[in-house]
Amino acid sequence: MASAGERLEAMRGRAPLVQCITNYVAMQRAADALLAIGASPAMVHDAREAGGFAGIADALTINIGTLSPHWVEGMEAAATGARGPWVLDPVAVGATAFRRETAARLMALKPTAVRGNASEILALSGEAGAGRGADAGDPVEAAESAARALAARSGAVVAVTGETDFVTDGTRAARLTGGSVLMTKATAVGCALTGIAGAFLAGEDDPFEGVIAALASFKAAGAHAAEGADGPGSFMPRFMDALAALDAAAVDGRTARAAA
Amino acid sequence: MASAGERLEAMRGRAPLVQCITNYVAMQRAADALLAIGASPAMVHDAREAGGFAGIADALTINIGTLSPHWVEGMEAAATGARGPWVLDPVAVGATAFRRETAARLMALKPTAVRGNASEILALSGEAGAGRGADAGDPVEAAESAARALAARSGAVVAVTGETDFVTDGTRAARLTGGSVLMTKATAVGCALTGIAGAFLAGEDDPFEGVIAALASFKAAGAHAAEGADGPGSFMPRFMDALAALDAAAVDGRTARAAA
Amino acid sequence: MASAGERLEAMRGRAPLVQCITNYVAMQRAADALLAIGASPAMVHDAREAGGFAGIADALTINIGTLSPHWVEGMEAAATGARGPWVLDPVAVGATAFRRETAARLMALKPTAVRGNASEILALSGEAGAGRGADAGDPVEAAESAARALAARSGAVVAVTGETDFVTDGTRAARLTGGSVLMTKATAVGCALTGIAGAFLAGEDDPFEGVIAALASFKAAGAHAAEGADGPGSFMPRFMDALAALDAAAVDGRTARAAA
Repeated sequence: MASAGERLEAMRGRAPLVQCITNYVAMQRAADALLAIGASPAMVHDAREAGGFAGIADALTINIGTLSPHWVEGMEAAATGARGPWVLDPVAVGATAFRRETAARLMALKPTAVRGNASEILALSGEAGAGRGADAGDPVEAAESAARALAARSGAVVAVTGETDFVTDGTRAARLTGGSVLMTKATAVGCALTGIAGAFLAGEDDPFEGVIAALASFKAAGAHAAEGADGPGSFMPRFMDALAALDAAAVDGRTARAAA
Repeated sequence: MASAGERLEAMRGRAPLVQCITNYVAMQRAADALLAIGASPAMVHDAREAGGFAGIADALTINIGTLSPHWVEGMEAAATGARGPWVLDPVAVGATAFRRETAARLMALKPTAVRGNASEILALSGEAGAGRGADAGDPVEAAESAARALAARSGAVVAVTGETDFVTDGTRAARLTGGSVLMTKATAVGCALTGIAGAFLAGEDDPFEGVIAALASFKAAGAHAAEGADGPGSFMPRFMDALAALDAAAVDGRTARAAA
Repeated sequence: MASAGERLEAMRGRAPLVQCITNYVAMQRAADALLAIGASPAMVHDAREAGGFAGIADALTINIGTLSPHWVEGMEAAATGARGPWVLDPVAVGATAFRRETAARLMALKPTAVRGNASEILALSGEAGAGRGADAGDPVEAAESAARALAARSGAVVAVTGETDFVTDGTRAARLTGGSVLMTKATAVGCALTGIAGAFLAGEDDPFEGVIAALASFKAAGAHAAEGADGPGSFMPRFMDALAALDAAAVDGRTARAAA
């Protein structure tokens, strides 16, 4: 089986076109991260063109961070028109009825994968958590059984990310350690990771392993970038440099994976 | 009375959830600044959920930098639904009739505080200034009497920010010096400050002192970040690091306050 | 004839107010770049005020990167109301019918200049290229004759930017070398350049020379910023510093120009 690092190199060889419908906070950061790691990002969101473009793009990611009814139309058009895999990022899904309803409609369109923090995965599974906004109020462990149930029910690979990441397809499950606490101190880092998960899923036969490879690559770059950073501000340019400089050995050497 | 630095520590202890309806330029920068200084930002703008979310959030900030009719609906819903204090940032309010009308409607919803540059506070007070776009065309001193009148008339704390900041609640007034000229050479810095003012007002009994503490913290971080910066680009990561590293002693030691 | 560096100094002396209708990825980066180089950016996009503001601004730039019908209304209002020169940036114009139609409507409103990558200029000229999203799939040379034809037909100065830039007004043509490959590794760099082209065109008698001066200044700053950068992340703060620090001698010394 290919390692996470080998999957990074394979992704770069494909240089996938990744359509991102993401929030206003994440637009630049997610696009920069995708370009740095070797994919080609395209932010195309309106219903007038989102479905058609999803028929061209190699992967699609949908993030509900800054929601409005027009954008939901575009999200549904894109998820319906997607020719490749797609990833849902249910930002702050527990915060309002509008988000819960939108996420439910998107889940019905069968995402290949879902990535969120523990509070978001709990909320998406219909369980109560401690999150109020976009930041996690619960530890990853608290969402593991909800993630398993959601994956089994939906057919999606579900990733709960935090200090330790938990990934499951309902049958298999794994935990990943590595990365840096600085990854939680700047905004839109999780949104950028969702974009990168899309890049790894394009042309990938095994979505479970593809998501794990994306998470491992992200953690490896974060750990490298944190060395010498003075805080969340200086971390971010270093993180983009690290995504660009990342190689297979660093991915496989810097992240620890355990079956769960 | 608590010092500005002590108010920073108290704000961090509360880690307030701050709903920001801000402009597209400021989305990432304002969110990063809030997270760095110890608050939890949430960008929720659409009328479909903005009012409901304002009933959960600890504070709200509204910035009219990139305006459209749909967003104005969300701004009004949020200001109406706010359970906590809220801050208005009247970006370029003098530039168009649409901005003047929107700002007037929002002022009628009784913001706790207003923060703008001198040209914006002059325009909001109905006086002519030299500003055309989002940058100030007038010195802070030129807007002091307009700020006093606006505060007395509206009940809001009014802050005019620039090289020297002027803050008044119509009765009390203060001037703050410190910071760095580099804070005017990158965009959305004032918008980020508006977000941080919201964080300081959450759970604060004295909005006049809360706004001053936010401004003093911001200036202290800016002064620290400017040391060793080579220009507006290298300033910004250093500024986010400085917001994260800021402590009470730095806030109280780096900023000078005088009654006005 | 004034050199490119002298035109930079003249632009700074005018400190033009540049209205930018740009995409969500580029909002902050384009505004930062304009402010750093010495212009005053204003992001005003909605039809409710875009046309009126274009009657105040010294220049206008329109970028179709993240398109929606409401924004197209604002773009048309602004282009119609513009009192000064304006620049079109046809991002990913070949990707969807919506983009092709929007670009055609905007071309009919007679932009002063058009800036795009090779795939975009080919698509705008009605020729087939290899681009799918926002990144170029074709080399600049492949779009030179399409650029000449587009300039002759439309009356706009057309700039195809990449490793070597090609600029033509249909009669005159020039190639510019310089810059750094890192300028293609972060997003929205071309969008920021479009904004800066707007700044140089404000008050400029010769749009062909104005666009060349903008491109030369941009390349000179990029070359300087790339020295010592470790990747696309650390490049960007250095680039903003370099735009702010740029002087006429650096512009004229770091870029090579040849008639074409």
